Amino acid sequence: METVIGTIAGALTSISMLPQLIKVIKEKEVQPLSPTMIIVLMAGVALWVVYGIMKSEWPIIISNSFSFLVNGLLLIYYYILKE
Amino acid sequence: METVIGTIAGALTSISMLPQLIKVIKEKEVQPLSPTMIIVLMAGVALWVVYGIMKSEWPIIISNSFSFLVNGLLLIYYYILKE
Repeated sequence: METVIGTIAGALTSISMLPQLIKVIKEKEVQPLSPTMIIVLMAGVALWVVYGIMKSEWPIIISNSFSFLVNGLLLIYYYILKE
Repeated sequence: METVIGTIAGALTSISMLPQLIKVIKEKEVQPLSPTMIIVLMAGVALWVVYGIMKSEWPIIISNSFSFLVNGLLLIYYYILKE
């Protein structure tokens, strides 16, 4: 039951990040992004992954790995488009 | 140990949300916000709080409650400024 709720929770929080990524890719506009905050967020989600691994909780591991990936892509785009 | 990592993780992911809230309040500009995505995100973090309560994991409960609050404020600002 917890796993079902965790999976839905992770899916919803993951889905909510995609429009920003799509917007940045489509409009090639990174002005609203702050690289410092993306790095802080990535450090946070990386620690959530560690937490999930220590507790063997898959919903936490998967949703935070996905978040790490999406924010990593945003950061890469930020530096590509800034050049 | 897990609690320490979870607390740091929660603090980092929470801190990373604040600049957006501050920016919206200061600049009174909500254009980059999507209310649909804020609602999806709030539904997701609400379920993370339920998940945290079911597993009695405080770092998850606290950081997601904080996220729910910040996004609730963003949503309220969105509708105030849209009027």
